[in-house]
Amino acid sequence: MIYFDNSATTVIEPQVLKTYTDVATKIMGNPSSLHNLGTVAERMLQASRKQIADLLSKEPAEIYFTSGGTEGDNWVIKGVAFEKKIYGNHVIVSAVEHPAVKESAEWLKMQGFAVDFAPVDKNGFVKVDALAALIRKDTIFVSIMAVNNEIGAIQPIREIAELLANQPTISFHVDAVQAIGKIPLTEFLPERVDFATFSAHKFHGPRGVGFIYIKTGKKIQPLLSGGGQENNRRSTTENVAGIAATAKALRLALTDFDRKTAKLLAMKQVLLAALATYSDVVIFSQTENFAPNIITFGMKGVRGEVLVHGFEAHDIYISTTSACSSKAGLASSTLVAMNVPPQIATSAVRISLDESNHMAEIEQFLTIFKQLHEKFQKIK
Amino acid sequence: MIYFDNSATTVIEPQVLKTYTDVATKIMGNPSSLHNLGTVAERMLQASRKQIADLLSKEPAEIYFTSGGTEGDNWVIKGVAFEKKIYGNHVIVSAVEHPAVKESAEWLKMQGFAVDFAPVDKNGFVKVDALAALIRKDTIFVSIMAVNNEIGAIQPIREIAELLANQPTISFHVDAVQAIGKIPLTEFLPERVDFATFSAHKFHGPRGVGFIYIKTGKKIQPLLSGGGQENNRRSTTENVAGIAATAKALRLALTDFDRKTAKLLAMKQVLLAALATYSDVVIFSQTENFAPNIITFGMKGVRGEVLVHGFEAHDIYISTTSACSSKAGLASSTLVAMNVPPQIATSAVRISLDESNHMAEIEQFLTIFKQLHEKFQKIK
Repeated sequence: MIYFDNSATTVIEPQVLKTYTDVATKIMGNPSSLHNLGTVAERMLQASRKQIADLLSKEPAEIYFTSGGTEGDNWVIKGVAFEKKIYGNHVIVSAVEHPAVKESAEWLKMQGFAVDFAPVDKNGFVKVDALAALIRKDTIFVSIMAVNNEIGAIQPIREIAELLANQPTISFHVDAVQAIGKIPLTEFLPERVDFATFSAHKFHGPRGVGFIYIKTGKKIQPLLSGGGQENNRRSTTENVAGIAATAKALRLALTDFDRKTAKLLAMKQVLLAALATYSDVVIFSQTENFAPNIITFGMKGVRGEVLVHGFEAHDIYISTTSACSSKAGLASSTLVAMNVPPQIATSAVRISLDESNHMAEIEQFLTIFKQLHEKFQKIK
Repeated sequence: MIYFDNSATTVIEPQVLKTYTDVATKIMGNPSSLHNLGTVAERMLQASRKQIADLLSKEPAEIYFTSGGTEGDNWVIKGVAFEKKIYGNHVIVSAVEHPAVKESAEWLKMQGFAVDFAPVDKNGFVKVDALAALIRKDTIFVSIMAVNNEIGAIQPIREIAELLANQPTISFHVDAVQAIGKIPLTEFLPERVDFATFSAHKFHGPRGVGFIYIKTGKKIQPLLSGGGQENNRRSTTENVAGIAATAKALRLALTDFDRKTAKLLAMKQVLLAALATYSDVVIFSQTENFAPNIITFGMKGVRGEVLVHGFEAHDIYISTTSACSSKAGLASSTLVAMNVPPQIATSAVRISLDESNHMAEIEQFLTIFKQLHEKFQKIK
């Protein structure tokens, strides 16, 4: 099997699963409990929080656990909007955000907020000038993803941070779900960022666990009200085993960052060079300012799902852009926002690599690609 | 170790943990993915959903997975209120709900909803007459827990269901987190119930997983917007391993229900009979209309946390009522709602039994209780 759908989900790392099972069996208390079984659980929880904070060069009190990227995005977008609605009513998100951001913004619209979607250029990068033009006196919130999940475009977070430098009343959120472990922290977590979202299963952690960064002093309303856990900001009995496993997974993911990303880039470059030799292949993910692990392309005249199933027959797993929109059979909303014509957008497929992939798999993929290309050429 | 804090959390069942690890390692796909790794994951997800639905005598399409009881309660309360606010503005919850319900209702108040808290009698049971008197023309929602987490009172859900029988526009939610596996389904899931909340870690399932029942045809807005999972009602990549483990845990929890609850009740009766011989012990959890696993009592003049730590020194783990309010050092809000005087309410401790506990542990507990009682008598 060749698994090239790592942006959809990664397999849990055996060491990470071992942490999960060790903690689940040995640390049974509820961290809120007064007795020492609770204390031991609380200590593991705080150690995990500190480990993650250290890895991000942030403070432990700035890390809040969630059930994943979607909850993180929903929490930040809804929680900040409700917190700040006395100050203003206007929210900006980019046109190429993950549905967790985009649909949260749409929900805010139903509640009476004004929402603008910042446009992208033909390569998928947020136009910072256009974003600047959208800012109003009553803008309370800007949310821009670090790495686009459908084509891997690295958004100009540092440039946007500069734009917002003299706008201290605007909260700045970065969906970093696809960025962590793939591009340097400095690219997506500059000081001006107030909130950031992370998801464990994208870096070989467990499903159902994530965390958000909330800069000290920044206010947000809870999405989950209740028993007062997580500094009274996110109630629920803490998933200590999942959280400890997430801390472990993050440490592993960020270990040897340069070597891993260089390996990803080398594989991507081989893929891109080979795909570029086909005149009917359109490539959406270049190398400059794109994540090293994502290659999205289309074979003109062949729908993406046909190509996905063509590879599947050879035990090779790729995706029609994001997993979330796969089954709906819709064109990638990122490509639509880039003004890619529908007949080309619907041909798009995404390869998303992992550091555990290797060059022989790339070669195998290209061999099968050649066969499929010939086959589809005949049919077309 | 004697663990009598099972209402705070239970240890994961080894078989359940095995299901988790098996699924996490063998079923790696994202259920939303188009290829067959996704299909296999989707199939496991739906099989788990069907298993849970069957166990509850409900339809699979009525079961929605969450990250736990708190998310379930928040989702139902906020999601139904926002969905129905065009029809009315008034919400009723009981005065003894879990904070996940109560704080969600408080949050709704901040958003302009009118909230009433239905009172309880001196034994902790919701007064159905008083609840009836609170119902207004614009009441859209009633939320009453099945088993109170602090004293084990079984609320009159069937009676309330009858009250609401001719009020079809009022949504009826039952927080069943402490009820499942402890009292018969018929007691808390009659046909009139529209929504119900469940949490896996209360029945030896994994942390961070729960589910809610949504009756066919009942509307609710998502709490987590995004990629459209869970029938477009609860987005996020599904925690398939956690969900499969939850289905397994529920099956185990409901197997041999009569024998297990009889065992719990027998242990409770021994405890109650022994505690009743102490004139300075106040018992809050009788047998009739109380869950068989919870015994809450206070030793007059001794603060609950002192008793908790007294037992802890003997490796026996009990709780000052709910885990959530433990650290705040507050009197149980249930006892406050029952008009228990503060100096008695702050003496309360909760024993919460599991079917894996046994009579020898009860005897051991009572031996230590006697010693502690003597010690505290001298100090008082």
